[in-house]
Amino acid sequence: MTVHSRPAPAVVLGQNQYGKAECHVVRITRNGATHHIKDLSVSVALSGDLEDVHLSGSNANCLPTDTTKNTVYAFAKKHGIESAEQFGILLARHFVTSQGPIKRARIRVEEYAWDRIAGGVEGGGGAGEANGSVASGHSFVRSGQETRLAQVAFDGERWQIVSGLKDLVVLNSTNSEFWGYVKDEYTTLEEAYDRVLASEVSARWRFGWSGDPHREPAWESTYRRVRADMLQAFAETYSRSLQQTLYEMGSRVISRNDEIDEVRFSLPNKHHFLVDLEPFGLENDTADAAVYHAADRPYGLIEATVLREGAEAGIPPDLTNL
Amino acid sequence: MTVHSRPAPAVVLGQNQYGKAECHVVRITRNGATHHIKDLSVSVALSGDLEDVHLSGSNANCLPTDTTKNTVYAFAKKHGIESAEQFGILLARHFVTSQGPIKRARIRVEEYAWDRIAGGVEGGGGAGEANGSVASGHSFVRSGQETRLAQVAFDGERWQIVSGLKDLVVLNSTNSEFWGYVKDEYTTLEEAYDRVLASEVSARWRFGWSGDPHREPAWESTYRRVRADMLQAFAETYSRSLQQTLYEMGSRVISRNDEIDEVRFSLPNKHHFLVDLEPFGLENDTADAAVYHAADRPYGLIEATVLREGAEAGIPPDLTNL
Amino acid sequence: MTVHSRPAPAVVLGQNQYGKAECHVVRITRNGATHHIKDLSVSVALSGDLEDVHLSGSNANCLPTDTTKNTVYAFAKKHGIESAEQFGILLARHFVTSQGPIKRARIRVEEYAWDRIAGGVEGGGGAGEANGSVASGHSFVRSGQETRLAQVAFDGERWQIVSGLKDLVVLNSTNSEFWGYVKDEYTTLEEAYDRVLASEVSARWRFGWSGDPHREPAWESTYRRVRADMLQAFAETYSRSLQQTLYEMGSRVISRNDEIDEVRFSLPNKHHFLVDLEPFGLENDTADAAVYHAADRPYGLIEATVLREGAEAGIPPDLTNL
Amino acid sequence: MTVHSRPAPAVVLGQNQYGKAECHVVRITRNGATHHIKDLSVSVALSGDLEDVHLSGSNANCLPTDTTKNTVYAFAKKHGIESAEQFGILLARHFVTSQGPIKRARIRVEEYAWDRIAGGVEGGGGAGEANGSVASGHSFVRSGQETRLAQVAFDGERWQIVSGLKDLVVLNSTNSEFWGYVKDEYTTLEEAYDRVLASEVSARWRFGWSGDPHREPAWESTYRRVRADMLQAFAETYSRSLQQTLYEMGSRVISRNDEIDEVRFSLPNKHHFLVDLEPFGLENDTADAAVYHAADRPYGLIEATVLREGAEAGIPPDLTNL
Repeated sequence: MTVHSRPAPAVVLGQNQYGKAECHVVRITRNGATHHIKDLSVSVALSGDLEDVHLSGSNANCLPTDTTKNTVYAFAKKHGIESAEQFGILLARHFVTSQGPIKRARIRVEEYAWDRIAGGVEGGGGAGEANGSVASGHSFVRSGQETRLAQVAFDGERWQIVSGLKDLVVLNSTNSEFWGYVKDEYTTLEEAYDRVLASEVSARWRFGWSGDPHREPAWESTYRRVRADMLQAFAETYSRSLQQTLYEMGSRVISRNDEIDEVRFSLPNKHHFLVDLEPFGLENDTADAAVYHAADRPYGLIEATVLREGAEAGIPPDLTNL
Repeated sequence: MTVHSRPAPAVVLGQNQYGKAECHVVRITRNGATHHIKDLSVSVALSGDLEDVHLSGSNANCLPTDTTKNTVYAFAKKHGIESAEQFGILLARHFVTSQGPIKRARIRVEEYAWDRIAGGVEGGGGAGEANGSVASGHSFVRSGQETRLAQVAFDGERWQIVSGLKDLVVLNSTNSEFWGYVKDEYTTLEEAYDRVLASEVSARWRFGWSGDPHREPAWESTYRRVRADMLQAFAETYSRSLQQTLYEMGSRVISRNDEIDEVRFSLPNKHHFLVDLEPFGLENDTADAAVYHAADRPYGLIEATVLREGAEAGIPPDLTNL
Repeated sequence: MTVHSRPAPAVVLGQNQYGKAECHVVRITRNGATHHIKDLSVSVALSGDLEDVHLSGSNANCLPTDTTKNTVYAFAKKHGIESAEQFGILLARHFVTSQGPIKRARIRVEEYAWDRIAGGVEGGGGAGEANGSVASGHSFVRSGQETRLAQVAFDGERWQIVSGLKDLVVLNSTNSEFWGYVKDEYTTLEEAYDRVLASEVSARWRFGWSGDPHREPAWESTYRRVRADMLQAFAETYSRSLQQTLYEMGSRVISRNDEIDEVRFSLPNKHHFLVDLEPFGLENDTADAAVYHAADRPYGLIEATVLREGAEAGIPPDLTNL
Repeated sequence: MTVHSRPAPAVVLGQNQYGKAECHVVRITRNGATHHIKDLSVSVALSGDLEDVHLSGSNANCLPTDTTKNTVYAFAKKHGIESAEQFGILLARHFVTSQGPIKRARIRVEEYAWDRIAGGVEGGGGAGEANGSVASGHSFVRSGQETRLAQVAFDGERWQIVSGLKDLVVLNSTNSEFWGYVKDEYTTLEEAYDRVLASEVSARWRFGWSGDPHREPAWESTYRRVRADMLQAFAETYSRSLQQTLYEMGSRVISRNDEIDEVRFSLPNKHHFLVDLEPFGLENDTADAAVYHAADRPYGLIEATVLREGAEAGIPPDLTNL
């Protein structure tokens, strides 16, 4: 038996968490022939008195990840899914208050949006028992744009709610410049006075909500408003850098949504390069049109937090993986 | 020199093709302050007198893939991108007619759709020189639903145009049954009289068009109509199997679109399993709601071609990779 | 009820197939403390008398995809998994011979390879009951290089067996040229006399085997030999084009493996561009080193079939998706 | 001009960083006919006096991301790539010391490993000028197992070096149990006394190195040792939970590698479920073999830090995305 096999004096356990990840739960709520759909991927992470699970092999304090999965599905039926945030709150409270050793729960949700399929244009249908008007009540197409995100953390006393989105791809075909920057010995970039600005928005916003049930934010309408604010700020900003556009987006969110204290963005600069068509006797960037090569990698990556004055940052700087 | 190095008598070259794949071309067309965007990934595949390129190392007949890429970008500027199909036709004709050794060209296109970002709700804007109304002319958000597809093949005489889409996720929350099937010794599935039916539609449709410029189909409006037909047939069909739904979708496309002779679908059955909540004292599938586990793999895969009577199938059976 | 809802006279059903896709089956075979692992993703596609399933909603001829899944797992236990090909043969024969309406079965397999984890270097172990030598019998790390492929098709009489691989990334840092090609008005590429040649090999090879049980190929050893032949031909070929390298790889496979009549490759040209470092006062391509930008898209795509003389091509030209 | 457009008093800029991400640089180093390859994806993130870039649109302090990209390629040629960590150190020091406004640099690297292609077994070669022995000097196949990671952070004074890996898939086919856990009203899991334990290892380890050039760790050999330690600890641990296995892996790394103060793991529990074959008259888990369904989602996710006693944790708890 060598010293490395169980070097108890020298090694300690640090932060740890566990749970079931990516439980894909779909709830159909039926109001007669009109159905509603909620489509969520839920990930549970629990922390607490779990030293023994790691060190001695005793699972006496370990609620199995399988049980956390079952709880997600049972709660979806029992309590419904009012919103991603509210569902996360129910789950986090349950795990922390029902299990002594569990001191902290973090629930992450991805939500996929669905639109209704429009009814037949000619009063149609006719296949089987269904017809156009019934169809619109139970037929859906995934909207497929951004993925909505929510994270609920609860330690028995304090709540931290962070909402967000990812995969929202935006583009301005003008009103973007980039010049006046530092030039060093490795700089070859030419200044741009009219360029395409495109990004895939990844954003997280933190609510100031302390857990007071009488002041719970309206999660659904806030989501719609924040999303619209970000899009409009992106569209309306005359940009000298993606950093400036980012700040305008964050500033708009903070100043128009009192519930939100902080927003963080991770914005890849999805480069659109003007193709050099001169070798083919063509001028590219003319008054009527321009053609770009949309590049994959590398890409600029612009990340920043925008805060309500006086608020402390709570969203970690690295949304991307290490 | 060993026998295996160039066993000329025993080995022959079969079908071959080459070209640049996934040229990501974005064209901004400007009508004053109102801009329009076309966003395509274009792949070129050329065939012809290319034996020497493979056998002797002579590239005398080889138009470099780099040149095919340049041609894509130059044509986008020079001729515009009216539609994915029309752009593919221009490219295919160019390669076959301008290069003696090139006898056949196949152009594949993926197209990504964009919506305009709506202007500020409060007459807003104000950042920089832009304002709400200008913004709507040059600001876009990727619609993110399905990916549009087009394939153009030309051999100097005949044209084959296949359009399509993928990634369109649909779901009916009722009006789907599955029962009365074969039971063998490996069958454990229980019959279902009301289930969720969901799929991610991958479809290809072939036009009957022979190349007559006076009878060229209206590619854009046909795409919109076929897409709507498929969605409505999916929504309106009371389904006893995904096969039946597929057939109704195909039948709708063929019977309502005279330009189209054939349509093929690859429809994964995205299983939504009712979760057994009985161990928790809950009834799941009640009048007001039900909760499902949305599974990833394995999935049923239903594939079929639907044809106009008298038409010969031209779309290969395997849309998926070998 | 409008004419489009069931236009029976004008629309017909074409080729169709169905089954469960991507059944991820892992079999552990135990020889005392020495375990062996087979890790397969199996996809079943059945064809036959299935008109009614599509047209009338009768499932009387439909073996559920759930049953095909059960069969995969049951056969893995009952018959073992000697090789991907042999397992596919067992399944295909079962479906076609046991189900009257099923006339044709196609089984596709992806196989993931595992290596044993080497025992402790210091005679170590010591945690729990295990020690180094026991560990090597039941501990595995996924090798992660290529994915092995097999496709078995059976129509009750004839067999077609196609094996293959994908995701095998290779690179030659010299012995590759590209010059002497066609120049047209869109050509800007400069000739290259010493370049990097890299690709991600996707290959399929078809066996001549007719089903005679006494002449069944040795699937495992053939796989290893074909893989080695391709790699060595890639390494040893002084290349004037990727087409030439492809042909040498195919030629090597055909001439050294009598069981194989045909091989098809889909070889992306993974471009490595010499970075222009002159603006920084650096010469890039010197005797001791060179630095490249490895680009993602677009990429050249070179595809071809190489055949034994007299053999008819059976592998479809398009390994990639439409 | 409305109040939301620039609410300066209420909104402040928080942490921010920017740079070019995923510069894919390949360096070929030539020792005569024997070539060596380094294949890295490098991401730069810079922080400092960048308020104006966000607030006023002045880029006077902004070194373009394009320049950071150029620097990566130029440094790869000029200084070589000794290791991912050492290359990151060169870059981080350069950005912080050469640019006044840049106060902190973080360099992330993904490294892809390559093996040499073995020479021809029959003394072969013969195609072109190459032969077997030359081939082995310039021909490579991507090893494809784990992806190596490195992160270097420098603020002008202190260094933080975190190395790691991801995508390393491991499996023990026995010596794993899970029982004695908490049972609540949502628990249905049955206890397991012999199960498959599989994971895809994602690990990060932090070095204690303070920047002293005379005590710089041997990055390459440490990487190989840590990797071997983790694999062996995984193989040799008789496991009562994945948590316990994780702790043994971390403990082994800390106790055997003096340079390392902390290691964090994110270990998905890749569930392998014993398939119920009783309905088919088969016993599954017999002495000679067992068949499992390898599931994708949901999965257990076990995450923890293991520390050298007295060390403070520096690796953020969330390796996964929010």
